[in-house]
Amino acid sequence: MTDKKNTKDMLGRSGLVPVRQALDTLLGALAGVRIATETIPLTEAFDRVLAEPVIAREDLPIQARSTMDGFAVRAADTFGASQSMPCYLNITGEVRMGEAAFGEVKKGCCHKIPTGGLLPQGADGVVMLEHTVPIDDTMIEIVKGVGSGTNLIQRGEDIGAGKEALPAGHLLRPQDVGLLAGLGVSEVPVTKKIRVGILSTGDEIIPHTSIPLPGQIRNINTLALAGLVRRAGAVYVDYGIVSDREEIFLPAMKTAVRENDIVLFSGGSSVGIRDLGTQVVEALGPPGILVHGVTLKPGKPILIGLSKTKPIFGLPGHPVSAMVCFDFFVRPTIKFLSGRKSQPDLPVPSVMARLTRNINSAPGRRDVIRVKLIKEDDGWKAEPILGKSGSISTLSRAHGFFMIDEDSQGVTENSVIKVHLFK
Amino acid sequence: MTDKKNTKDMLGRSGLVPVRQALDTLLGALAGVRIATETIPLTEAFDRVLAEPVIAREDLPIQARSTMDGFAVRAADTFGASQSMPCYLNITGEVRMGEAAFGEVKKGCCHKIPTGGLLPQGADGVVMLEHTVPIDDTMIEIVKGVGSGTNLIQRGEDIGAGKEALPAGHLLRPQDVGLLAGLGVSEVPVTKKIRVGILSTGDEIIPHTSIPLPGQIRNINTLALAGLVRRAGAVYVDYGIVSDREEIFLPAMKTAVRENDIVLFSGGSSVGIRDLGTQVVEALGPPGILVHGVTLKPGKPILIGLSKTKPIFGLPGHPVSAMVCFDFFVRPTIKFLSGRKSQPDLPVPSVMARLTRNINSAPGRRDVIRVKLIKEDDGWKAEPILGKSGSISTLSRAHGFFMIDEDSQGVTENSVIKVHLFK
Repeated sequence: MTDKKNTKDMLGRSGLVPVRQALDTLLGALAGVRIATETIPLTEAFDRVLAEPVIAREDLPIQARSTMDGFAVRAADTFGASQSMPCYLNITGEVRMGEAAFGEVKKGCCHKIPTGGLLPQGADGVVMLEHTVPIDDTMIEIVKGVGSGTNLIQRGEDIGAGKEALPAGHLLRPQDVGLLAGLGVSEVPVTKKIRVGILSTGDEIIPHTSIPLPGQIRNINTLALAGLVRRAGAVYVDYGIVSDREEIFLPAMKTAVRENDIVLFSGGSSVGIRDLGTQVVEALGPPGILVHGVTLKPGKPILIGLSKTKPIFGLPGHPVSAMVCFDFFVRPTIKFLSGRKSQPDLPVPSVMARLTRNINSAPGRRDVIRVKLIKEDDGWKAEPILGKSGSISTLSRAHGFFMIDEDSQGVTENSVIKVHLFK
Repeated sequence: MTDKKNTKDMLGRSGLVPVRQALDTLLGALAGVRIATETIPLTEAFDRVLAEPVIAREDLPIQARSTMDGFAVRAADTFGASQSMPCYLNITGEVRMGEAAFGEVKKGCCHKIPTGGLLPQGADGVVMLEHTVPIDDTMIEIVKGVGSGTNLIQRGEDIGAGKEALPAGHLLRPQDVGLLAGLGVSEVPVTKKIRVGILSTGDEIIPHTSIPLPGQIRNINTLALAGLVRRAGAVYVDYGIVSDREEIFLPAMKTAVRENDIVLFSGGSSVGIRDLGTQVVEALGPPGILVHGVTLKPGKPILIGLSKTKPIFGLPGHPVSAMVCFDFFVRPTIKFLSGRKSQPDLPVPSVMARLTRNINSAPGRRDVIRVKLIKEDDGWKAEPILGKSGSISTLSRAHGFFMIDEDSQGVTENSVIKVHLFK
C-alpha cells in the first residue's frame, strides 16, 4: 500500500483535476493498448467496430444499370426531343431483371428496360417511361431527350475495385453493413466487445429484490451502470454486491480485473469511514491510481486507476454521480478501447433551449445540470431538475443535461443553453 | 384483385401523398391496435417499453440519510458557527453504514456519520467533515453551522409511496431501471418486442455471399433494413430472397404477415415490369393498400398497406430509398406499435451546419439530402453527398441528412441547415 504524494489533502485526496485533463491522463496511459479482434459473419456485425479497413474487391455496381423504368437509348438519338418536337425510336429488345442484356441498341433503336436492369451494349442513357408515349409494340415517341449517362448508375460509380470501402475503427451502422453486403463481404474482422465488470460495494447495500432493514439500501448502481454499458456497445458482467472489508473486496476486484477489460466499482470512492477504494486500486497496480477527484459536480470523488492496461473506475455511491461519471469518463474509455474512430470527430447532437431560471456555479468546477424539456410555441424551454445526487428520480425525470464550464459562475434565466439528450 | 380508384395514374399509382399525411393515415388506421404484453425480470428490462404505470409501493429513500461524511447534529446547536466563532459538540455516537442508527443525538452532542448513513433520532442536519476540526476522541469543533435539513436526503424526497414512478409507454433507460431497482421492483410489465419480417423480392437478387452472374445483384436491403430494425428496438426475421412470381411471393407474404407484427418487402414497390406488390398487398387485405407513392425523394414509390392490423411496407428496391422510407415511415410505426410515448414529444437532436453548395428542389416534394459533416473553426459545414439512390456508399459516407420541405424550392450555399444525424 503506497502513500502516494498526490493523495495528500485533508480528505486523502489530491487536488481536484479538471475533467478534460483527467480523461486525457487515462487515455494517454492506454495509448499503446491493443484490443483482441475476431472475424465474424457480416450478418452479426451490426454496431461492431472494424478492426481493419475493408477494401472493395470488385466494382459496385459491377455493370452499368438503369435507375428508372423506361427505354435504354443512344442519348444522341434523343437530343432536343420535346413535347412539341418529339423523336421516334424502334423498340428492338427488352432487358429483363436478373438477366444479362441481349443484343445491342443500334442507332434509331431502343430497348425496354426496368429499374435496376443492366444497360445493353450501345446504349448510354435511359429515357423515363413518363417521358414517352407508346405508339405501338414496335415504336415509342420520346417527348424529352436525355444526355449521355442520364438515369444510369455507372460501373464502379458506387465504389471502385481496390478502393477502401470502410476504414479501420469504423462503427458498422446499418448502411455500412449494407455496403459490405453489396461488395460480397461475408465475414468481417472486428474488435472484440469490451467487457465491463461491475461491483457494488458497501455493507449497507442489498439486492434490489430484497426488503431493506433499517440502514440498508437497495442496489441501484449495478443495474443503472449495466444499462449504460449496454448502450455504449459493451458487455457487462455483474459481480454483485461485495463487502467493503479488504479481505473480501480485494480478491473480488482481482477476479474482475482478470476477467474484464474495464472494472467499475461504485460506493468505495466516496471518502467514507471504511473507504478502501484507494488502497485496493493501488494494490491492483501498477501503475495504480491516476486521478482521485475531478472538478465535476456531481461526480467529484471519482477515482481512476490502472492495473497494467486495465482501467478501474471507483464511482461515487450516489447513483446520479455514478451515472454522470460514466458519461464523462467510462463511455469515452469504452469507445477508445473498442478501437472506434469517429471520422471526423462528430458533433454531439443537441437541442437549444431557453433556461427557465438562474443557476449559479462555483468557478473552477464543471456543473452538470439535469433538465426537463418542455415544448414552447417557438422552440423548447429547459427546466432544471434540482435534487441531490443521491436522488435517482431526478435522472429519471430529466431528458438531458447541460454543462456550466469551469470558467463560468452560472447561467441566467432565459439564456439559450445547449441540452445534450441522454444516450 | 381489386382495381382501386385511387391507384389509377399512368404508372398505376395514385397521386402522391404528402409524407405527414401518409404516416397519419397509417397510424390512424392502427389507433385501436393493442400489442401483447409480458412480465419480465427488471434485469432484462433495458430499453423495453412499460405496458403499465409503475406506482411506488414505498418511500424512496425509506429513511432520511446523510449525503456527506461528517457529523449528525441538531442544527440549532450550530447556528452562527464560523471560523472565527466556532462551536463545540460532544461526540456521543457513531452511525455505521448498513446499520440502524442507535441512540439519540442530544442537545450539545453529535454522532459521527458517513455518506449514506441513516440520520439518528434527534439530529436534523449534517456538518461536513471539511467544516470540522477534531479536538479529541470525544469532542469536535464546528467552523461552519448548518440549517435544518442541510446535507440530508429526506424520507420520500426521491419519490413518495403511492406516487407514479414511471408512466405507461415509458422507454426504460438505464436511470429508469435504476429507479425501479431502488423501489424494489423485481419484475415489470412491458410490451412484447415488435417483430418485423423482411423479404427481398426480385429474380435478379442473390444472397450477399454469392457471386453475381451478369444481371444479378447482391441483396443489400435485407441486412441494411435488419440493422435499422434492431436499432429501432425491434426484432427482425429474415425471410430471404423471394421470387417475384405471384405464386411464390403471395404465400411467402402470407407466412410473414402471420408470424410478425410488421412486414417489409423491398424491390416490389418500384413500378417494374413484373411488379406484383400492389396486387399482393391487396390480396393480403383488407383494408389493403393505404398509400402508394409519397412526396419524398428518395422514397417516392413506397407502398403502405394493412392486412387487418398488420402494417405492410413495400419499400423501393434502391437501398438508399428503402432506408429513407424506413426513417420516415417504418421507425415511427414500430415506435407507435410498441406503445412508446414520448413525454413530452422530445425534439430530435440535431447539428446546425453551413451548407457548402446550392441545392435545388422541386416544390411539392420533400427532399432528403445526405451530408458529410466537416469541422470548421467556428462550427460545422455540411457537404451534400449527391449520388443516385441505388448508391449505398452515399449513405455510408454520410453522417446524417437534412430536409428540403415541400414548400421550398431549394437551399442556397452558406445557409445554416439543421442536420439530423443517422440513428
